Amino acid sequence: MLDLGGDLVALFRAVCDTASVSGDERVLADAVEAALRACEHLEVVRDGDTVVARTSLGRDRRVVFAGHLDTVPLTVPPNLPTRVVGEGDAAEVWGRGTVDMKGGVAVALALAAELVEPAQDVTWIFYDNEEVAAELNGLGRLVRNRPDLVAGDFAVLGEPTSAGLEGGCNGTLRADVRVPGVAAHSARAWTGSNAIHAAHEVLDRLAAYVPAEAEVDGLVYREGLNAVGIRGGVAGNVVPDECVVTVNYRFAPSRTVDDAARHVTDLFSGFEVTVTDAAPGARPGLDDPLAADFAAKVLAVTGGAPGPKYGWTDVARFAELGVPAVNFGPGDPLLAHKDDERCPVAQLALCRDALRAWLSGDDAA
Amino acid sequence: MLDLGGDLVALFRAVCDTASVSGDERVLADAVEAALRACEHLEVVRDGDTVVARTSLGRDRRVVFAGHLDTVPLTVPPNLPTRVVGEGDAAEVWGRGTVDMKGGVAVALALAAELVEPAQDVTWIFYDNEEVAAELNGLGRLVRNRPDLVAGDFAVLGEPTSAGLEGGCNGTLRADVRVPGVAAHSARAWTGSNAIHAAHEVLDRLAAYVPAEAEVDGLVYREGLNAVGIRGGVAGNVVPDECVVTVNYRFAPSRTVDDAARHVTDLFSGFEVTVTDAAPGARPGLDDPLAADFAAKVLAVTGGAPGPKYGWTDVARFAELGVPAVNFGPGDPLLAHKDDERCPVAQLALCRDALRAWLSGDDAA
Repeated sequence: MLDLGGDLVALFRAVCDTASVSGDERVLADAVEAALRACEHLEVVRDGDTVVARTSLGRDRRVVFAGHLDTVPLTVPPNLPTRVVGEGDAAEVWGRGTVDMKGGVAVALALAAELVEPAQDVTWIFYDNEEVAAELNGLGRLVRNRPDLVAGDFAVLGEPTSAGLEGGCNGTLRADVRVPGVAAHSARAWTGSNAIHAAHEVLDRLAAYVPAEAEVDGLVYREGLNAVGIRGGVAGNVVPDECVVTVNYRFAPSRTVDDAARHVTDLFSGFEVTVTDAAPGARPGLDDPLAADFAAKVLAVTGGAPGPKYGWTDVARFAELGVPAVNFGPGDPLLAHKDDERCPVAQLALCRDALRAWLSGDDAA
Repeated sequence: MLDLGGDLVALFRAVCDTASVSGDERVLADAVEAALRACEHLEVVRDGDTVVARTSLGRDRRVVFAGHLDTVPLTVPPNLPTRVVGEGDAAEVWGRGTVDMKGGVAVALALAAELVEPAQDVTWIFYDNEEVAAELNGLGRLVRNRPDLVAGDFAVLGEPTSAGLEGGCNGTLRADVRVPGVAAHSARAWTGSNAIHAAHEVLDRLAAYVPAEAEVDGLVYREGLNAVGIRGGVAGNVVPDECVVTVNYRFAPSRTVDDAARHVTDLFSGFEVTVTDAAPGARPGLDDPLAADFAAKVLAVTGGAPGPKYGWTDVARFAELGVPAVNFGPGDPLLAHKDDERCPVAQLALCRDALRAWLSGDDAA
C-alpha cells in the first residue's frame, strides 16, 4: 500500500520498487488506484492500467498533470530495489525508474492527496505503456476511450527535466530497414547470398550519419538517428536470407512525420524501409499565456530558464488536442534509460514545492 | 507407420512428411523404431531419439551406415508436406529434408528391412540433432553412451552427394563476435555509444572476406566464413550497449580447430571473440583399402569419380574413432537447407541399388 501522506522519498522509493516494465504495470496501477480511492476529494476512474483522479470544485481552469507508470526493462542483474547513495540534501536514489519517471509520479501522488481544495481543478493521470510503440500508449487510449478525462486548459507532463522547465519535444519515428539475401547451407555459402554481410552498408550509413540541429521558437533541438535493434539468422549453419535493422529517428518539431519518413527512406535508399511507428513532435509553445504563467510561478521557486525537450513526450499529444503543455519533473533527463539512472532527493521536494505553490496560488483561479 | 518394404518414393515422402526439425525428432524416431522392431533379423536399441538396428551374422566385417533424422527449420509458409514435380525418371520430390538427408534415411530403412543376410554385418544408425550445436549431436551421444554400437570397419554417411562419392569434410567452428557500446535513451543518443553502429566494422570485414581453397590428398576444399546470426537492441528507444555477430567458419581438413580459432580471432582483432562450438574436419581417406573397395563397387553402379565434401558431416566423428568413412546419398548438396530443396527420385533408386550391390556382394565377406 502506498502512503501518499508520508515521507516523499519513502513514497518515491515504494513507487520505484514496485517494478513496472511496459506491459507489466498492473501491480503498480492497482496500488496507485487503491491509494487514490482513499482520498474523498477525488473522483477515480480506471482504464486498463491507467488511473485517473480528479477534483470537481467548479474552478475556472482545469490543469491536467500526466505521468507514465512504466519503465524500460531492468538491467541484468536488476537495478532494483532502489538504493540511496549519499546523505541529506546530497542524497541520490539509484535504480530503474528513478529518472524516467517515477519521481514525477511520486510528486503527483503526494500533491493529489494533499491538495484537497486547489485553486484550479486538477486531473491527475497515471498511465501505462509510454516506453513502447505509440499505439500501446495508455494516454492515447484514454484520449480514444474517455476524451473528457484528458480535457483541460493546460497540461504538465512530469517527465524528468532536472526540476527545470522544458518546452515542446522532438518527434520520433521507428522504421525497419530490410536487407534481403538468398538462404544456403553455410558449408556452401557461395550458392547463397548473406543478408547480414549485405547489411554492412546500412550500418556504414548509420555510423557516418551526422544528426542535425534545428532552432524552433528560440530553442535549439538536437536530432538523432539510431539503430535500436538488429536481427538476422535462422540457424547456426544457414546463410541468412534476411537481416532487419530497426532504426529510431528523433526529429525536430519543425519537421512533420512525413518529412521524417522521407528523410529515413532517402538515407536508406536501395533498401526496403517500413515505418512501423511514428509520433510528431511539439513546438515549445511557451508563448501561450497559460504556459507563460506556469513558467513564471514555477521558475520563481526552482530558478533557471526554459529549455528544449529532446525526448518525445506526451506534450505532443496534448499539443495535438490543442492543450498547451510543458515538461516539468525531477531527475536528469540525460540519465533516462541508463544503467546508472538516479535522482537527487532534493529535486523531488523542489518539484513538489513549485507545483504546490502554483496549484495553491490565490491569483490562479 | 512406415512401410519399409513398399515403394521407395512413398517411404521417402512419408519420412519427409513427418517433420523433424532438430530437437523435435521424437515422432519420426518412434516411427523408425517401430518399423525396425518389426524386422526379426535386426536387434534394435533406442538412445534418446537415436535408433540403432543391426545384424549379428558373425561376418568378418561390420559396416556402419549412419543418417540423421533431423532437418533445419521449415520455411515460412512451411515447405511440407512434400510435393512431386515432373513425371517418371524426371520426377523430383520437393520439401524440407528431401536433400538433407531424408533420402539417405529412406534408402537405409528400405535396405535394413530387405537385407536379411547381408554379406557384411551392418549397423544402421538413425540419429537426432545433427543440424545444431556439436554437443547435442545424437551420434556423438551414442559414442559416449554405447561406443559398441558405433564400432565397425568402415562407415557410410548417407549425406547428400547427388549419388556420387564424397570424401572427408570441412571442419566447422562457430564464434560470437561481441561489439560493446554504452546504453542511453535514443532521444539523447549523444550521451551513449551505439553498439550496432560500431558493428559496421565487423560486417565490413565479413563482406570483404575472401575464403581460401586448400588441396588435401588430391581433393580441393573450399572454405567459407559467414555471419549466421546477429542480434542487438533492448527496446525501441534505447541505444544498445551490445551487438553480437555469430559467425560460422568452415575450414579445410588440413587445418586444426586451433588453427581455425586463431584465424577467426585474428580476423576480428579489436573485438571480443568467443568460440562457442567447433568440430574438426576429416581428410578424404580414400587411400584406405576398404574405402577404395567401396568406391569401386558403388561407382560401378553410379558412375563418376570421388570429390570433396564441403559440409561438415559425421565422417569426421568416425575419422576420430579411426573408422574410415565416406559420404554417399541422394540429393544435390548445393540444395541442402535451401528453400527450394528437392531430390530427383532416380537418385533414390540409384543409391539403393549401389548400396544393395555392395552389401550383398559375394566377394565382400
